[in-house]
Amino acid sequence: MCRWLAYTGEALAPSALVLDAQHSVVAMSLNSPLGAETVNGDGFGLGWYGADAALGAQPAVFRSIEPAWHDQNLREISQAVRSPLFFAHVRAAAGPPIQQTNCHPFRHDRWLFMHNGGIAQFASIKRELVLAIDPSLYPGVQGTTDSEVLFHLALTYGLAEDPIAAVGAAIRRVEEAGHAAGVRFPMQGTIAVADGDTVWAFRYSSQGRSRTLFHSADVPTLRAMYPDAERLDAFGDHAQVVVSEPLNDLPGVFLEVPESTVAVLDREGYHHREFLAG
Amino acid sequence: MCRWLAYTGEALAPSALVLDAQHSVVAMSLNSPLGAETVNGDGFGLGWYGADAALGAQPAVFRSIEPAWHDQNLREISQAVRSPLFFAHVRAAAGPPIQQTNCHPFRHDRWLFMHNGGIAQFASIKRELVLAIDPSLYPGVQGTTDSEVLFHLALTYGLAEDPIAAVGAAIRRVEEAGHAAGVRFPMQGTIAVADGDTVWAFRYSSQGRSRTLFHSADVPTLRAMYPDAERLDAFGDHAQVVVSEPLNDLPGVFLEVPESTVAVLDREGYHHREFLAG
Amino acid sequence: MCRWLAYTGEALAPSALVLDAQHSVVAMSLNSPLGAETVNGDGFGLGWYGADAALGAQPAVFRSIEPAWHDQNLREISQAVRSPLFFAHVRAAAGPPIQQTNCHPFRHDRWLFMHNGGIAQFASIKRELVLAIDPSLYPGVQGTTDSEVLFHLALTYGLAEDPIAAVGAAIRRVEEAGHAAGVRFPMQGTIAVADGDTVWAFRYSSQGRSRTLFHSADVPTLRAMYPDAERLDAFGDHAQVVVSEPLNDLPGVFLEVPESTVAVLDREGYHHREFLAG
Amino acid sequence: MCRWLAYTGEALAPSALVLDAQHSVVAMSLNSPLGAETVNGDGFGLGWYGADAALGAQPAVFRSIEPAWHDQNLREISQAVRSPLFFAHVRAAAGPPIQQTNCHPFRHDRWLFMHNGGIAQFASIKRELVLAIDPSLYPGVQGTTDSEVLFHLALTYGLAEDPIAAVGAAIRRVEEAGHAAGVRFPMQGTIAVADGDTVWAFRYSSQGRSRTLFHSADVPTLRAMYPDAERLDAFGDHAQVVVSEPLNDLPGVFLEVPESTVAVLDREGYHHREFLAG
Repeated sequence: MCRWLAYTGEALAPSALVLDAQHSVVAMSLNSPLGAETVNGDGFGLGWYGADAALGAQPAVFRSIEPAWHDQNLREISQAVRSPLFFAHVRAAAGPPIQQTNCHPFRHDRWLFMHNGGIAQFASIKRELVLAIDPSLYPGVQGTTDSEVLFHLALTYGLAEDPIAAVGAAIRRVEEAGHAAGVRFPMQGTIAVADGDTVWAFRYSSQGRSRTLFHSADVPTLRAMYPDAERLDAFGDHAQVVVSEPLNDLPGVFLEVPESTVAVLDREGYHHREFLAG
Repeated sequence: MCRWLAYTGEALAPSALVLDAQHSVVAMSLNSPLGAETVNGDGFGLGWYGADAALGAQPAVFRSIEPAWHDQNLREISQAVRSPLFFAHVRAAAGPPIQQTNCHPFRHDRWLFMHNGGIAQFASIKRELVLAIDPSLYPGVQGTTDSEVLFHLALTYGLAEDPIAAVGAAIRRVEEAGHAAGVRFPMQGTIAVADGDTVWAFRYSSQGRSRTLFHSADVPTLRAMYPDAERLDAFGDHAQVVVSEPLNDLPGVFLEVPESTVAVLDREGYHHREFLAG
Repeated sequence: MCRWLAYTGEALAPSALVLDAQHSVVAMSLNSPLGAETVNGDGFGLGWYGADAALGAQPAVFRSIEPAWHDQNLREISQAVRSPLFFAHVRAAAGPPIQQTNCHPFRHDRWLFMHNGGIAQFASIKRELVLAIDPSLYPGVQGTTDSEVLFHLALTYGLAEDPIAAVGAAIRRVEEAGHAAGVRFPMQGTIAVADGDTVWAFRYSSQGRSRTLFHSADVPTLRAMYPDAERLDAFGDHAQVVVSEPLNDLPGVFLEVPESTVAVLDREGYHHREFLAG
Repeated sequence: MCRWLAYTGEALAPSALVLDAQHSVVAMSLNSPLGAETVNGDGFGLGWYGADAALGAQPAVFRSIEPAWHDQNLREISQAVRSPLFFAHVRAAAGPPIQQTNCHPFRHDRWLFMHNGGIAQFASIKRELVLAIDPSLYPGVQGTTDSEVLFHLALTYGLAEDPIAAVGAAIRRVEEAGHAAGVRFPMQGTIAVADGDTVWAFRYSSQGRSRTLFHSADVPTLRAMYPDAERLDAFGDHAQVVVSEPLNDLPGVFLEVPESTVAVLDREGYHHREFLAG
């Protein structure tokens, strides 16, 4: 019940997308046209890999419980850093509490994770899911959200070895627990995961009616389509984005990621394939 | 650019109006149908006179920079106290900063003050208006809002002796400064002032197109209109409210306060008269 | 690693002890002479039963992550309410995170709970202790502290039926888990529990070297000892306090609660007995 | 009534001094051996010029009202950025309010400013001093501290043209106002100012008994003195620091800046001269 954005490409100040876009992440925090909730004011987070960091290095995370729209620190930091891969997230809490440990993105070693959506009737199956987390990973659960539990399930099921399989196994575990508790459609949402090099973005729901997800067209194509768009000058040829909803209203710039799909953004660009379909 | 409510009558837990009404103040913080802004998430405040306090005693104020909608402390406190006269306010900041000293209501001795609206181009005339504040009152200005300056101008012009004349003089001073700076319509808004015994609620704008303001019909009339409305059981016969917009959709419960009017809520009930008209 | 105070007696504004005492709880937050840590700046909490509330009614809780020493809302609220039984707590976090859900006191139905001290090597036995919580109570664990887990263990072991036995069983469970993990002295601390009518205050540590705990002498005795002490006028004859360290330096006013003891404060006054001794 | 540090030299992650030193700024926030107050828990700030920024570019500022000692965001950001010139400050508020706009450093265009100390009886002369600020600069005063007023006086008196003369004139203006109001020693403190290239650090008080101030010995000398000190490997040959108190206990590493002195740290290293002496 949130909005999020993941960027990969040439190192960039996150402010270009977080603050300056027509429908920037900060703008979405106050008014999200395609969101399940129009207001996403229950905290935010920015996670970024350093422009000069060694591959595999831990990303930095800045999280706050304040609404993003007037947060001065978010403005400062998103303008002051440069990153080739960053996540931004604004939260609409399905339930309190509002606290930093419930703000996305979550981090484990070199991994970042964020989520829009939820696990239906989470309170009734939380204990079972928490028990399914590897005991060595259990102390890393710092907050109380369904999303953080989902992340730790994916870590348990081998995120570091095979991210797509691990997120798939985590979701199947959630569905199993939910179905056993009589929940018809346990899983909903879009999820982004990164290791500093690649972004995996999942769009999936048990019902097959997932939260929206879009990816950007490749920049050289956009330059050809919009030769006069000065805003494109801010971006390199390898810049690409996955995002909860289009960052602007220009036709052809943002393309929908299909249902039951995982999108992969890496050095070869964008591609996607079926995920947990059928 | 806010929403507010003032209650006077039998001592009541503020939660009845702040949390439990159909369009409670907390509900308005997230979605305000009649507001200039639909989201009022830049902090809130609750000011209340004690149920047993001596007349003239200082009211208590609880203010926070968090959005009201998920604030657990606001829930606790508005349920735990009883008050015969309280103010509640949710803020939509026209400009940052978001800080407690910019949250309404403001307090001076036994007086409370809150405001929805603004002084046009305040930055350009702020210095002049601040200079017009009585030097002995100047140290009491703790924040940076136009509203707090307006309150201190009203104090300067004799709020404690004649509230209606003092608020009128403060507004006229603002309009004088604004006009001198080339601002056509310097003043906008609705204002509530209380001394622990009486509430004065002003609706006025230089343009004659003020923010909305409503008052409740008297409770015995409402009981006759809606004999089956169990929610009315929570209120005494002298309960009355002025509020930025109706707290529910029942016809006849909330009546508009006219333009250029001051409404007075005291032990004799509700009455109003022209204010700065013509 | 905190400081706390529990009051029972005639209804009183908590400010008398939280703000106004020589070594008030707020003063202890900045400088605690007898504390394991001298600074207790990682949030605070105030829990209180209403002066007019029905027996068994749920207490109110106000908690914040700000340091207590300059918190304006704590000043306001502790002066504005009246309560015959209240808890105040200032936190020194052994480990982050600093969030409201980690601030004491904790509440369940009509019960309040707070703690000074800790469970040694909590991270290594947390999962086991959390599993020992009754599954129906598990969703009530909102934060990440050892203290909140201890409270839910006491609830699991029958706090509502026999508070002394239940807290004892919870501590024994902690010691069992700790010893199994090779921890020599698993439990440390002082604990206060209340149901709105009675306060139970425990002083216990596995090592037999517990955090300090004091109770006040009875007020009529104090009036005889200090006939000129005007501050005593604020208190009724049944006022009594248990507290981490004396609230003032007057000889004879605060008396130490012995090691391995539970102190009981009820309408008959103060008494204590051995707790988990030997 | 605070602690601060200014660094200039090879680009460095601020964490090296803010987090990792023996008596780091974060450590000083909780326990400051030489401070007028031992606890500096009323917020903090980090201001930094970018490693690749054009000369004259605006620095970034991250400020928070939380105590520095457990602030996760401060840890993240001070490790993630690199800067050739940064300021860090932890606040002990002489008076509330605790709000971001009262946290140091303050910024204007390419300038940073921070202060430890205070203006005696500020409330009584604040209005006069605020009136002495250039009206065009007046809207830039966002908070309520004496320090921010002092900064704006220095800007008024030509900080951009001659920083030493401008700070001197600002202090003389404060002393003039204070003396007229019967204050014997109006000014107290240490002040740091930077333009992105040079740091000016002032130690001055009307009484001649100023808050402590130290600067680091030059790094090549330190390497010769302490050939085995591995921590020195983190620093380049041009690294230099001015700081409220020594960052470690090694003899000879930190040298006192004399009373009534301005220290200048630029590309040629450290030098100082008399300031407002006699």
